Amino acid sequence: MKTYLKELECPKCGKKYDPSKLNNMCECETPLLVRYDLEKMAKEFDPRVWSSRPRGLWRYRELLPVVDDEHVMSLGEGSTPVFPLRKLAAEYGVKEIFVKDEGMNPTGTFKARGAAVGVSKARELGVKTVAMPTAGNAGAAWAAYCARAGLKMVVAMPEDAPATTQAECMAYGAKTYLVKGLISDAGRVIRQACDKYGWFEVATLKEPYRIEGKKTMGLEIWEEFGDKMPSAIIYPTGGGVGIIGMWKAFQELRTMGWLKGRLPKMVAVQAEGCAPIVRAYKERKDKAEFFQGAHTVAAGIRVPSALGDFLVLDAVRSSGGTCVTVTDEEILETWKHLSSTEGALICPEGAAAVRAIAKIKEMGVISPDDSVLVLNTGAGMKYTELLTERAVNLGNGSLVE
Amino acid sequence: MKTYLKELECPKCGKKYDPSKLNNMCECETPLLVRYDLEKMAKEFDPRVWSSRPRGLWRYRELLPVVDDEHVMSLGEGSTPVFPLRKLAAEYGVKEIFVKDEGMNPTGTFKARGAAVGVSKARELGVKTVAMPTAGNAGAAWAAYCARAGLKMVVAMPEDAPATTQAECMAYGAKTYLVKGLISDAGRVIRQACDKYGWFEVATLKEPYRIEGKKTMGLEIWEEFGDKMPSAIIYPTGGGVGIIGMWKAFQELRTMGWLKGRLPKMVAVQAEGCAPIVRAYKERKDKAEFFQGAHTVAAGIRVPSALGDFLVLDAVRSSGGTCVTVTDEEILETWKHLSSTEGALICPEGAAAVRAIAKIKEMGVISPDDSVLVLNTGAGMKYTELLTERAVNLGNGSLVE
Repeated sequence: MKTYLKELECPKCGKKYDPSKLNNMCECETPLLVRYDLEKMAKEFDPRVWSSRPRGLWRYRELLPVVDDEHVMSLGEGSTPVFPLRKLAAEYGVKEIFVKDEGMNPTGTFKARGAAVGVSKARELGVKTVAMPTAGNAGAAWAAYCARAGLKMVVAMPEDAPATTQAECMAYGAKTYLVKGLISDAGRVIRQACDKYGWFEVATLKEPYRIEGKKTMGLEIWEEFGDKMPSAIIYPTGGGVGIIGMWKAFQELRTMGWLKGRLPKMVAVQAEGCAPIVRAYKERKDKAEFFQGAHTVAAGIRVPSALGDFLVLDAVRSSGGTCVTVTDEEILETWKHLSSTEGALICPEGAAAVRAIAKIKEMGVISPDDSVLVLNTGAGMKYTELLTERAVNLGNGSLVE
Repeated sequence: MKTYLKELECPKCGKKYDPSKLNNMCECETPLLVRYDLEKMAKEFDPRVWSSRPRGLWRYRELLPVVDDEHVMSLGEGSTPVFPLRKLAAEYGVKEIFVKDEGMNPTGTFKARGAAVGVSKARELGVKTVAMPTAGNAGAAWAAYCARAGLKMVVAMPEDAPATTQAECMAYGAKTYLVKGLISDAGRVIRQACDKYGWFEVATLKEPYRIEGKKTMGLEIWEEFGDKMPSAIIYPTGGGVGIIGMWKAFQELRTMGWLKGRLPKMVAVQAEGCAPIVRAYKERKDKAEFFQGAHTVAAGIRVPSALGDFLVLDAVRSSGGTCVTVTDEEILETWKHLSSTEGALICPEGAAAVRAIAKIKEMGVISPDDSVLVLNTGAGMKYTELLTERAVNLGNGSLVE
């Protein structure tokens, strides 16, 4: 197996970079995108081969950036299931709602995809120590793959990041620091430390390969749905790498002539208390401003500023999608409702995306005949601290209805 | 697609039961086993079809007991990944160690397999309310599938069952009760309540279909390894349904002529503080006695008495395997070691099984040339409360190495 990796490219100024060298961002401070020799690949490669390979995202080896198999670090990431939410579809009045459950990844979230590919490539490029700020889950995922790859890892997160994610980072042996404030404050601490100690900074989109891991969600959706893509893909948006990655996947598949027909409308969902991208979308801007006083119960989308905002906005606009907010009350209500009716205990971020389906239906972005796919980005069992109900203690007594 | 379901059979007295009727155990109080028309299936069915189907355990539809597709309840269970633990293999001095990571199931444990099939079949047979005692994870899994199936669920668990599993049961809408004592005490409470209220009791092996779900671990292992099975399969044993199920799968495949060559040695691992089956094995008994004063940090294997003990002992002995204990100190040490070296945060029960590899190598059950497969039965992130290390809080300060 081989990769068709060709070069790194700045989507703003067009400058090219050599992918055999370690790179963070473009000189113009824009995130770099990985480019492949798609023309050659379209001629040589039959994508049906992918489906015949073992489960997991490394089946898309040709369209991933790692050159040498020796550096491929895997904990079984990818090949997550898609299942229907029939009761909810009836309730919201749409034809079908599918959830792609990214909770069934190593470390329980979609962050494992970006980490698997990001860490593997960092290892291939000779990195010894990586450092990152995180809302929680990305840190846990990168810490896991760094442990496997034998890389050192330094992580900083808000002091109120979910307890489970703090513990995970520690368990994987990452040097774990808490900071007062938001992920943006953790980001400042990490940036300074990287300057000082020469660590490789892997904050969201500060290196080019995390997108490639997240891209595999798009490849899997295509493998699952083929030319009968859902009308819309609903995605909870913090840093936005998933939506950027899926859209990149669809473009690459389309360029090679493998994805025909209409592409899904890409819908970015944010919390009302932290909605920089939604605001920029509504104000018809190409770039989002820092969102002051960011707050939401969904820690993963409490991201007041995202480097890739312009790429998210481009995916949304090019696809005819939209950007929409939900409140914390709506998130928690949907979260509880979904577990007790459909048996799906998703994460608060996933619940935000689910609730948005009702909103975009009202807005007319989707119609009653449409099928939609929602990304649940993590396992709900990581967030049971949000549940207020308690079990009844019988002590030595017996159960009386 | 169709099932080759034929009948229920008592493995002790041989009495047959009609699988279209609701059954708990045999009149002789022995768990019932599901039998299929394997002769017919071997003639008519090509098992290569299984690999071509979508991911998940329902690809083995023919060898599962649900008749009508309408009752198949799925949250994406099964098709869990297998990956190597290379550093640990070098450390323990064996050729290869593979882990099958059952943490990547709905609700984060292998219990989802038994629950998916058990609940689907209960629904097909017209059950309205199921009730069960649990150490924690089985309750969470059954509660999830009951929510999806529209069944009512009542669950009782020890008051010190892991907090996450308690919260999960509540989130899925199960009536959740805590009791003073062990799973055996919860069992008594549930049994009485089932007698009183007519609920269907689904305690371990009190109904025949949970084994069929667990069996799919064996089918997947065969699909993965084919005729080059690992030398040994190491399994953390509480109720023992997994080992019984895998062994049943291997027998069914062998009967149909699809699994040739040597079968793996089945190794049952228990905690030193709760080892009824290991004790019975050493005393050459066919049945285990109640283990007084049961205690271990690994809640899932804190099962002082198991209805299927005789089936576990049979699988172990027929396969040339063994039964072995590990201490809580060994469990915790291995748990931490594995996450920081291999990036695999497994569950304490899984850690018990991993540690047992070193023991059975010392005992001569496996040799340095052997490949072994260990079942990690759940996601370690459900147990981060066991981790004592804490992150460093920088407050508003900066990171100094």
